[in-house]
Amino acid sequence: MPELIFPLDSTKPFTAQEKVGHNRWHPDIPAAVTVKAGDSFRVHCREWFDGAIVNDDSADDIRDAPLAGVHVLSGPIAVEGAKPGDLLIVDILDIGPIPQEDSGPLAGQGWGYTGIFPTLNGGGFLTEQFPDAYKAIWDFSGQKTTSRHVPHVEFTGIVHPGLMGTAPSRDLLSTWNTREAALIATDPDRVPPLALPPLPDSAILGSLTGEEFDTVAAEGARTAPPRENGGNQDIKNLTKGSRIFYPVFVDGANLSVGDLHFSQGDGEITFCGAIEMGGFIDLRVEILRDGMSTYGVSENAIFMPGNTDPQYSEFLAFSGTSVTLDGEQRYLDSHLAYQRACLHAIDYLTKFGYSPEQAYLLLGAAPIEGRLSGVVDIPNACATVYIPTAIFDFPIAPSASGPFQIDPGIGAPHSAF
Amino acid sequence: MPELIFPLDSTKPFTAQEKVGHNRWHPDIPAAVTVKAGDSFRVHCREWFDGAIVNDDSADDIRDAPLAGVHVLSGPIAVEGAKPGDLLIVDILDIGPIPQEDSGPLAGQGWGYTGIFPTLNGGGFLTEQFPDAYKAIWDFSGQKTTSRHVPHVEFTGIVHPGLMGTAPSRDLLSTWNTREAALIATDPDRVPPLALPPLPDSAILGSLTGEEFDTVAAEGARTAPPRENGGNQDIKNLTKGSRIFYPVFVDGANLSVGDLHFSQGDGEITFCGAIEMGGFIDLRVEILRDGMSTYGVSENAIFMPGNTDPQYSEFLAFSGTSVTLDGEQRYLDSHLAYQRACLHAIDYLTKFGYSPEQAYLLLGAAPIEGRLSGVVDIPNACATVYIPTAIFDFPIAPSASGPFQIDPGIGAPHSAF
Amino acid sequence: MPELIFPLDSTKPFTAQEKVGHNRWHPDIPAAVTVKAGDSFRVHCREWFDGAIVNDDSADDIRDAPLAGVHVLSGPIAVEGAKPGDLLIVDILDIGPIPQEDSGPLAGQGWGYTGIFPTLNGGGFLTEQFPDAYKAIWDFSGQKTTSRHVPHVEFTGIVHPGLMGTAPSRDLLSTWNTREAALIATDPDRVPPLALPPLPDSAILGSLTGEEFDTVAAEGARTAPPRENGGNQDIKNLTKGSRIFYPVFVDGANLSVGDLHFSQGDGEITFCGAIEMGGFIDLRVEILRDGMSTYGVSENAIFMPGNTDPQYSEFLAFSGTSVTLDGEQRYLDSHLAYQRACLHAIDYLTKFGYSPEQAYLLLGAAPIEGRLSGVVDIPNACATVYIPTAIFDFPIAPSASGPFQIDPGIGAPHSAF
Amino acid sequence: MPELIFPLDSTKPFTAQEKVGHNRWHPDIPAAVTVKAGDSFRVHCREWFDGAIVNDDSADDIRDAPLAGVHVLSGPIAVEGAKPGDLLIVDILDIGPIPQEDSGPLAGQGWGYTGIFPTLNGGGFLTEQFPDAYKAIWDFSGQKTTSRHVPHVEFTGIVHPGLMGTAPSRDLLSTWNTREAALIATDPDRVPPLALPPLPDSAILGSLTGEEFDTVAAEGARTAPPRENGGNQDIKNLTKGSRIFYPVFVDGANLSVGDLHFSQGDGEITFCGAIEMGGFIDLRVEILRDGMSTYGVSENAIFMPGNTDPQYSEFLAFSGTSVTLDGEQRYLDSHLAYQRACLHAIDYLTKFGYSPEQAYLLLGAAPIEGRLSGVVDIPNACATVYIPTAIFDFPIAPSASGPFQIDPGIGAPHSAF
Repeated sequence: MPELIFPLDSTKPFTAQEKVGHNRWHPDIPAAVTVKAGDSFRVHCREWFDGAIVNDDSADDIRDAPLAGVHVLSGPIAVEGAKPGDLLIVDILDIGPIPQEDSGPLAGQGWGYTGIFPTLNGGGFLTEQFPDAYKAIWDFSGQKTTSRHVPHVEFTGIVHPGLMGTAPSRDLLSTWNTREAALIATDPDRVPPLALPPLPDSAILGSLTGEEFDTVAAEGARTAPPRENGGNQDIKNLTKGSRIFYPVFVDGANLSVGDLHFSQGDGEITFCGAIEMGGFIDLRVEILRDGMSTYGVSENAIFMPGNTDPQYSEFLAFSGTSVTLDGEQRYLDSHLAYQRACLHAIDYLTKFGYSPEQAYLLLGAAPIEGRLSGVVDIPNACATVYIPTAIFDFPIAPSASGPFQIDPGIGAPHSAF
Repeated sequence: MPELIFPLDSTKPFTAQEKVGHNRWHPDIPAAVTVKAGDSFRVHCREWFDGAIVNDDSADDIRDAPLAGVHVLSGPIAVEGAKPGDLLIVDILDIGPIPQEDSGPLAGQGWGYTGIFPTLNGGGFLTEQFPDAYKAIWDFSGQKTTSRHVPHVEFTGIVHPGLMGTAPSRDLLSTWNTREAALIATDPDRVPPLALPPLPDSAILGSLTGEEFDTVAAEGARTAPPRENGGNQDIKNLTKGSRIFYPVFVDGANLSVGDLHFSQGDGEITFCGAIEMGGFIDLRVEILRDGMSTYGVSENAIFMPGNTDPQYSEFLAFSGTSVTLDGEQRYLDSHLAYQRACLHAIDYLTKFGYSPEQAYLLLGAAPIEGRLSGVVDIPNACATVYIPTAIFDFPIAPSASGPFQIDPGIGAPHSAF
Repeated sequence: MPELIFPLDSTKPFTAQEKVGHNRWHPDIPAAVTVKAGDSFRVHCREWFDGAIVNDDSADDIRDAPLAGVHVLSGPIAVEGAKPGDLLIVDILDIGPIPQEDSGPLAGQGWGYTGIFPTLNGGGFLTEQFPDAYKAIWDFSGQKTTSRHVPHVEFTGIVHPGLMGTAPSRDLLSTWNTREAALIATDPDRVPPLALPPLPDSAILGSLTGEEFDTVAAEGARTAPPRENGGNQDIKNLTKGSRIFYPVFVDGANLSVGDLHFSQGDGEITFCGAIEMGGFIDLRVEILRDGMSTYGVSENAIFMPGNTDPQYSEFLAFSGTSVTLDGEQRYLDSHLAYQRACLHAIDYLTKFGYSPEQAYLLLGAAPIEGRLSGVVDIPNACATVYIPTAIFDFPIAPSASGPFQIDPGIGAPHSAF
Repeated sequence: MPELIFPLDSTKPFTAQEKVGHNRWHPDIPAAVTVKAGDSFRVHCREWFDGAIVNDDSADDIRDAPLAGVHVLSGPIAVEGAKPGDLLIVDILDIGPIPQEDSGPLAGQGWGYTGIFPTLNGGGFLTEQFPDAYKAIWDFSGQKTTSRHVPHVEFTGIVHPGLMGTAPSRDLLSTWNTREAALIATDPDRVPPLALPPLPDSAILGSLTGEEFDTVAAEGARTAPPRENGGNQDIKNLTKGSRIFYPVFVDGANLSVGDLHFSQGDGEITFCGAIEMGGFIDLRVEILRDGMSTYGVSENAIFMPGNTDPQYSEFLAFSGTSVTLDGEQRYLDSHLAYQRACLHAIDYLTKFGYSPEQAYLLLGAAPIEGRLSGVVDIPNACATVYIPTAIFDFPIAPSASGPFQIDPGIGAPHSAF
């Protein structure tokens, strides 16, 4: 095990830990710890809601999820000598649930959860069709997971950090705040909102206090969206063995990480769509001096995925195009096309006995592949979603004998305002 | 070889063939041939521009490409006994370039092409950045391909039909025409246009003549977009061994196929983005009676991909978010996110010596993976594009020694209005 | 299609063809055709028994198979400028059954066969347990195959040449004949024999006639075993896209090829164990000057497999050790260990309703993996065999409900002396 | 983490632990711990030499390795209710090096080793060519490993237990001792020996003492070979996610496990050929009542491999046949064929600058594939070995420019008697 440089105690809340992380992006949040280029180290990560979601059969916790407080991130980790203009090479050496804690009340202690947020508290990819709150608890057994709320499936986790990134510079932060405010201004009362502006309430800013805290809390960017620094990319393929190259915007790079997922389908479609958990991640860092200009990597992270992702060889796939459910034709909208592909998959799965919510939760959590198949054939984009057939314990392909009927069990816990 | 039921002579244009196919969707285009459920058969397919694109070092043919005439499709193929409400099961038994013709003037005779359409004639995914016409010729050598216009890469083709589908019913056709006309009406003078309305000019309608021809030509839907009947989905994973389930909207199903691709990246991003070719496809059909309602598959095709796609295990990946090049924040726009991911990849490749056009053409043609990675993290969608590193004959990963410099050769032929 | 340089007419026997190949190895068999380095070309190949095995439900043809006449090889193909000491680079561009001939009496015309030779005429890997003749006919449908003699399985072919190699030098031929004669001399009356000495009877030697024919027929090595020149290696992974490096022992290299297989499991365990067929192979050749000493490749062929082999992700595996069925302990005998692993797999499959012969034929034909797992743990070697579970249309894993019972159908045709 | 039922303290020798395991197979070794069907649990495993091999640059420890004391196994673990005739289902939930101990003097604390045993102390697969002792130390970094003794390679571990199995019945043990004694008797003075008879010296037998100890020590089978109970199979594919079915020969099944490997090539060809380490393994057990007769699984373990093995898509492969280095023809000897294939690979690697010993150590440790390619083509078996090309940091394929020359560094430590 590499040296543990950011420990968390599962019995204490995020702000009561030995080292306190943060839940906003800002260049002035001080590094919690410093490492050297070439170092390997372990970081504990708290599940993104800091324990607010529990292992039960109610979805009230999802309905009332404290979105203002996310994501509780471990860091910043300063890398000695990293300068703006460099690329920070980050190798994911290992990652997993909370080590040595196989049961307990905290996600990551042998279990995780997937949630569908209600439209009035976050919403999600298919919020028009699924306006209420739902939850599924997933139990871990080694590499694999099952759920009492979505029976008859078992799959191997594709474990990854949903969120990792470097600190923004003052200029970059300003760019973010400006452009996102402009978007919000186009429809400020929208539910769910178009974007999330800085919010001093619930801000956690490491060791900052007093006036500094107040200033940074007022300016700090929310962590929901991915941006130029990586951030909440929710790329399911950032698994063990991956190497990522992050642009460096501040001295020391100030890397932060969190929002670990036991598994996720492409898109993390239910918003809280992965199997959320706390756990650990082992990283090694290197500096590629002046890499941003040398390689033209200044506005995004690039990466080389690991080679131990779960292998599946047979898939059932669904396509969608950019026509709304109401029949309106949109122009080359791959986002809508993927929504339609996912809705088609959900419709299909209900023919076997699943509720639509169970099917939606499954697509968020299982290692499904979501592809931009056609993006140029005006006016319809074509997106496709591929479900591994081996995750079901019954035959899922169409056949002359019709869909096999499963027992859907207790179903997905439901909660509404 | 299964029986050849739709032959094409490479030396004759599409309309001079023994059986004449079609380039519009309409229920009244008569079947060119009839098969039985359970039959296996071979179909020849013409490259989508019917030979207008030639194997040379000019892009004038791409600039002037006759878009009104696409896609020249083989069919309709009626399946005895297929009824509206059924699913038509189509197995792709085999597919490839024009058999026994390894050289010649027609794409598919040992070579294919990728084009970037100019903004004034079609445009493409990145038309704002690439407003002119460009072309790359790809030479086939068994499973693999190389290009004098994009040197230092070689990859295994992921051969598939860009377009396959069943005939629409009269109602469905009317729906298409209505909804697409409504979209066009929002900006009728846009260049490139928002959608393509019926166009009697250049219509080819099988054996129809006279008044019937005129009526159908006036109503027939253009073949560019994918729709409820499958159509021009450009799904690169519809390779050999795939099984597709198409909704049946008319008696006999009336299946048509064309637009064969030797290879394509997810998205077919240059519009004429795959490696276009003529060739053959061997199919087997079955009927799943009343499958549309039984399985809830009525507005899209579902499929099970084949298991002999080219395998690559190492990738370099780029992410993008829904912020425009001008810095404007858009709301959860995966289409834009994929554009940005592709532009980041292009920027990267130019550091090694490729021109931006060469890089763009490569991303359209090589078996790259395009994923919808995050679709819920307001306001930024995250899309990712994965390039197999083994297709390059030089090291493509970032390293301390900086980017290896290739000789870009003669470059991609260019043409502008 | 590359130029066809070695054509075969399916209606004529091997010796009545325009170009006559050969069935013995000898440096003095004249090249049938000459190509240049860099050339791509097509070669037709006859099924290895020249049509003696027919598509019926009797195994008499297998019982009486004319082993003296195998393998009917296409070639020799001389490569201009190739010299002893070079490596001949051979790319397999494409390979398949007889093109354009989907039905007919010759294996390769839409079908192939697997046979178990009787002990008195060839024997096989498990000849003590299976002393009689059996046959299975496999029907091709695109990439896949099924058999009326082994029902409830379907798999994707892993098409490859069982035999390809360069001509031996006079010295090398002498080495072969000497060492194999010495082995035979240790038990000259063994049935089946230990090795096959030169046999003028049934020799086919290209264009040779008269005294030259007689001399070469008396000396020519039989083609059954693989040797330093490659030859009958039966490596199932020499699929499309493979690149092989053969040592060159004579001027022109004199490459020959034949014994095409639609599919095969590791080991080709029933002797006639692959799915045998005639067909075509497209090759490209290059010369690596002095490659034998430069790379230390002088006594074997080395190769880089293609990347479009059928992908399976779930396997049921069986192990075996080097203890005989009679309980005798042998010392680190991986050959025996693999026999025991295969016998364990056969025993297992019979629990589901297959006859032992059906199971044995299946293991020879399907793309099973056979691995040398442990070769050092005295006194027991450990070998393992992996069967893809997706090839069965019923659940094949052990479960509490016991083995599913299939209908074994008409079974495998049987014949005995 | 599942409950730790068999803990080991890295600072204490095997016999000084809280629970003492065993290094012989015998039905009378008492269970160290009892679990229930359905239980998940963690077991610590000691590296197979109990710490005798150290992390230095000498091979004296390999030369003098205490073979009489291997393998130090954790267990027996009794499963309540398991009866002879049942199958014990064992799921490998997780496995890895010693958790939380990233450095230290014990293999498994961030490092492991591969050794070549000298002929006078164990020997190995190629002992005639490599009669002395050699060692390579491998450093772990997350999923991957590198070695100062074999530079220019890095690969992802394929972590697995080399040894796992159930206790033999009295009858089965007797069978083993009888048949192995008979083999030894054919050449009792052979060096290395043909097999290893019971050896009271160095026996460790759990909680047994006194007369019972002496009796069991005199009869207990050595653990080197794999046998009907599984045992030292050294199957590299028994990775995370694997499910194994072991025959049950005694009440409680009495499962034992040890000899963990960070990685291994097929065959574990240097004897101490894997990357040896201590660590942990998480298991879950179930009983399949009467499964031995129901499924015909009574003399071997069967298994379904996990689906997260490291993926490589490009290989360089070498073949071998059953002709000795001295040119003697053997009859269908796959063991010899694999030796020749490995020797060809070693010869090839030396052309790039590696010493033969470095190449041999690499083939033992890296995830190479070893296949029984042809087992019927008299008189030559054909075996093949596939090396993933991506594990090298230089180009390894043959090319016109000749082999790239590496710096072999300090080489492999060497020691001789």
